[in-house]
Amino acid sequence: MDLLARLAAIVGKENLLARPDSSDALMQEPRGDFSGCALAAVFPKTVFEVAKILALCNEHGVGVVPQGGNTGLVGGQTPDASGEQLLLSLKKLDRIREIDPDSDAMTLEAGVTLARAQEAALSADRYFPLSLASEGSCTIGGNLATNAGGVHVLSFGSTRDLTLGVEAVLADGRVLSTLSTLRKNNTGYDLTRLMIGSEGTLGVITAATLKLFPLRRARVATFVALAEPQAALRLLALCKSRLGAALEAFEILPRIGVDFVLKHAKPARDPFSRAYPWYALVEFATQEDEEALKGKIIDLLEEATNLGLALDASIADSLAQRAEFWRLREAMSEVQQREGGSIKHDVSLPLKAVPAFIEEAARRVEALVPGARPVPFGHLGDGNIHYNISQPVEMEKRAFLARRPEVNAAVHGLVVSLKGSISAEHGIGQAKRALLRETKDPTALAAMRAIKAALDPKGVLNPGKLL
Amino acid sequence: MDLLARLAAIVGKENLLARPDSSDALMQEPRGDFSGCALAAVFPKTVFEVAKILALCNEHGVGVVPQGGNTGLVGGQTPDASGEQLLLSLKKLDRIREIDPDSDAMTLEAGVTLARAQEAALSADRYFPLSLASEGSCTIGGNLATNAGGVHVLSFGSTRDLTLGVEAVLADGRVLSTLSTLRKNNTGYDLTRLMIGSEGTLGVITAATLKLFPLRRARVATFVALAEPQAALRLLALCKSRLGAALEAFEILPRIGVDFVLKHAKPARDPFSRAYPWYALVEFATQEDEEALKGKIIDLLEEATNLGLALDASIADSLAQRAEFWRLREAMSEVQQREGGSIKHDVSLPLKAVPAFIEEAARRVEALVPGARPVPFGHLGDGNIHYNISQPVEMEKRAFLARRPEVNAAVHGLVVSLKGSISAEHGIGQAKRALLRETKDPTALAAMRAIKAALDPKGVLNPGKLL
Repeated sequence: MDLLARLAAIVGKENLLARPDSSDALMQEPRGDFSGCALAAVFPKTVFEVAKILALCNEHGVGVVPQGGNTGLVGGQTPDASGEQLLLSLKKLDRIREIDPDSDAMTLEAGVTLARAQEAALSADRYFPLSLASEGSCTIGGNLATNAGGVHVLSFGSTRDLTLGVEAVLADGRVLSTLSTLRKNNTGYDLTRLMIGSEGTLGVITAATLKLFPLRRARVATFVALAEPQAALRLLALCKSRLGAALEAFEILPRIGVDFVLKHAKPARDPFSRAYPWYALVEFATQEDEEALKGKIIDLLEEATNLGLALDASIADSLAQRAEFWRLREAMSEVQQREGGSIKHDVSLPLKAVPAFIEEAARRVEALVPGARPVPFGHLGDGNIHYNISQPVEMEKRAFLARRPEVNAAVHGLVVSLKGSISAEHGIGQAKRALLRETKDPTALAAMRAIKAALDPKGVLNPGKLL
Repeated sequence: MDLLARLAAIVGKENLLARPDSSDALMQEPRGDFSGCALAAVFPKTVFEVAKILALCNEHGVGVVPQGGNTGLVGGQTPDASGEQLLLSLKKLDRIREIDPDSDAMTLEAGVTLARAQEAALSADRYFPLSLASEGSCTIGGNLATNAGGVHVLSFGSTRDLTLGVEAVLADGRVLSTLSTLRKNNTGYDLTRLMIGSEGTLGVITAATLKLFPLRRARVATFVALAEPQAALRLLALCKSRLGAALEAFEILPRIGVDFVLKHAKPARDPFSRAYPWYALVEFATQEDEEALKGKIIDLLEEATNLGLALDASIADSLAQRAEFWRLREAMSEVQQREGGSIKHDVSLPLKAVPAFIEEAARRVEALVPGARPVPFGHLGDGNIHYNISQPVEMEKRAFLARRPEVNAAVHGLVVSLKGSISAEHGIGQAKRALLRETKDPTALAAMRAIKAALDPKGVLNPGKLL
């Protein structure tokens, strides 16, 4: 029996798609930067099926590419062009196994979407804080495999910090389980966190136990006008000092990005009657009542105004207004398409280095491509800037994109010199593999390679990704 | 030149103690359960010296036992009896390298005591929440190597959750550094967390970057009388639901333990005029003013009383009274010595299983050793119970301690059947090595062994510990 027939025998014929080509949506990364084809795509429904698939592929030396919601931005979920790899979709492994409000924990399978996970928590009167622009389609398995970040890292950490245990199938088909609601368990190495963020190269995550938090009864968003990034940093420090425990998100937006959204993502609305150079979208949430929280926020914004940090400020007084604030932020990446070509970077920096980074990166980009329009925005609270550059207005798109290698080198070189990270939350995948080799501490790289060889000696798990 | 001379050449003669025997304090675990001797004890002052020592020992196949404050309770820091291992004390590697309040982070060397780390944070108007009974003498290196827990895990997590990066010397002397103030960095496997809690078997941690938090301006401790553990669980749920973000510690104490402290740790004082079966010591802290916090706590305790959960309650109205509450909790382990022999367990359980565990464990212990006096206390907020058993009043100490294997088997067997952990926060060391082999998922054990072999092929790092 050939391999395809054996795979079909494991998952059932209806859960196997033979030889999908590069036009299939499963074979393409969403921005279109990476595509491939595969021996087959399989859709197992149980961890046992995943285990059998991996044992079989390991035996035959067939590379396995795990995929969740296919929303990753670095090509980690996309097979290569050989047509010899297997696409392992976890989308049908999507049961909610247990919600345990007493232990503030829930155990979900990999294919559950993030939005469904958030709803599951809510149904138990609990809060699961992971939140990303793609939450409607990204899956928990993908979130764990890439250690997803998002807008609440400032307060709750990344996916690694939100996870109590995982179930993962190792390269040879053995099932490793650290699933547990325990908060303290000092019985050996942290295999849970090792699997999280390993981008499918050490194991295929099939389920996870996630932390739940008390429901936030009040949630208040504010939009603050600022003169410059340094003022944003000072405002952030003030928010931490006054209301740190309630501070859930701190995003910055440059005027040019707000202009793009106002122009292309109608009916977006400017919260202020005049333009300001920079903005912060700051959100607070507590278990207490909304009026008490609003009172404290008003005091805080008054202090920020008196200190000269806030040039103007607006507090959302309805869910609709809150959604308007977030629309300005969430649409910022997608509207760049409407301004021609863009070259994007997902970087993080030590907080105090962010203003210098934004200034110097703009200088370097201007020197390389005069008229290029940087749109630096994102999670300032975590030092995570999406340094996206739109092409000069008059330039040809292809000509601009052809400069990508130089622009990337300039931006990433600056990040490294400022002790930042060349991938804050999107991961390495295929996109930053060469860059990782150039920038990562060689001892850390060697340790990673040793661990990979120890756990996947035949190299069948997501070959060509990360390492 | 022989090995001792080469070691002396690295650290200087004054930082080498040749052939310490088992009477030396460095060679004994604090409870006296483990002791050993060594080829030498060395006290390097820089990471470069540590690197040279490890390279030399790896070359010669000499086992290296790292040690911090020597407060560990499972023998992880104690050499074996062969006299062939090297004791590597990190106590002189004790610089505070950097405090960066802008990034809410500080970088410390391994030998800094936890108390000094807390003070360093405070000096920068920040809060470092790790807190243990031994904080005056335990060191950051030891805290990381054992993933120390303590009384604030409920709110802040264990040491692993408090650490942004580490510097560690690998078995062959290479220095791995993930030191960084970055909050988001998705560039490969989580080597930081892999090192933390590996008990010196994967690398010798020489420094760490730790997270800092906004200073808590108000801190209020309450002492609540309860009928039974189930009431404590319900009170915990109520505290989370009403004031979760301010809840920093939730400890339970049985009456017998309070009696022991009142009897042996004078001038301890009972907060109430009559005895109750159980107590919870619950502490809240916020950035806001104390009066506002106290008002909310009074409302909470009133609700708990109306629900029949709290039989009586006291709010500390001075630092002295707060210290009195904590004295009842912190002295509970040490005073057991005064009641004869004790058999101790550091276990964790899914929260809802804690009452059943306490009841059934008492039944099993009574069946084995009639009259034995269980004193289950500790971090209920994390499901972490220190299940310590004092000997029957009339029994001979040695006769009681001789029953330890059976008692341990009964308690740990129950823990495993309830999906708990046989080591919540103390780790494995020598004490629980056999138990780990019996109780850990075999696939997880195999993965741990593969990682150990990959990073320390000659097995020179803390041989005979953990795995």
